[in-house]
Amino acid sequence: MFDGEEISTIPVVDLPPAPRKGLVVVTCMDSRLDVFRMLDLEIGDAHILRNAGGRVTEDTLRSLVLSMHLMHTRSVFVIHHTSCGLHRLTNEALHSRVRAATGQDATHLDFLPFDDLAISVSEDVERVRSLPLLPEGISVTGAVYDVHTGTLHRVA
Amino acid sequence: MFDGEEISTIPVVDLPPAPRKGLVVVTCMDSRLDVFRMLDLEIGDAHILRNAGGRVTEDTLRSLVLSMHLMHTRSVFVIHHTSCGLHRLTNEALHSRVRAATGQDATHLDFLPFDDLAISVSEDVERVRSLPLLPEGISVTGAVYDVHTGTLHRVA
Repeated sequence: MFDGEEISTIPVVDLPPAPRKGLVVVTCMDSRLDVFRMLDLEIGDAHILRNAGGRVTEDTLRSLVLSMHLMHTRSVFVIHHTSCGLHRLTNEALHSRVRAATGQDATHLDFLPFDDLAISVSEDVERVRSLPLLPEGISVTGAVYDVHTGTLHRVA
Repeated sequence: MFDGEEISTIPVVDLPPAPRKGLVVVTCMDSRLDVFRMLDLEIGDAHILRNAGGRVTEDTLRSLVLSMHLMHTRSVFVIHHTSCGLHRLTNEALHSRVRAATGQDATHLDFLPFDDLAISVSEDVERVRSLPLLPEGISVTGAVYDVHTGTLHRVA
């Protein structure tokens, strides 16, 4: 990936840090989601939060508070996707898998799996809406991304 | 951002979910970081974790355990960047800012600010290396991205 000490990529000169569109995207770490291309974003347009599943966690709250209070974002877009590693799994199955691979106990970890994509998106949209410490009047929407057809379908 | 019920983006047909390069990138939510272009990644190459600062948190652990045990990734690349909103801030200043904006107490939140970029990257690289529940023999590297020159400089 990175054999030398320094590599050059794309110069980005004098763009301010605050997202131009006032937008925060919350989505999954999945390798098939190129958020810039998916949403036709330019460099400088949006904050992007990604974790396993695109779930709204304590760390998402930390990031949203910073995004909204330091960088004045006001819209959140939650996107989960088809063929997600967390879809239709259970914590029990995941704990067994980790124990089999490492011999270690992971039962203290909630991996946040889900059974239904539209419901998981709606739950996370509601979670953002009910978070403390965010500004009033923010807009929160949610969608499911189909990784096979490349279609985003709004569900919340 | 998303006015209708459905929008089409880029079709992705029959790519498997496991990242082709076995790589997980951990980086900041910053609007100026297009990770695919920065690292010359294709769709399907890598898992991407993003939060405020690109810090390694409990949620990063949850995601890394899933990535490595379900999708067989074995390399982690931690990237922080110049001109980051968390650079040279303090929790005290951030707590005051939230209180001034919302009237609410945020002192229970650690925003994970940092004073020195090379040190914050090295700390987070060490944090990944010392995480429980990950497979043995994983590779963890770290770099600082200069958002003005587009240069990645390896620091760990």
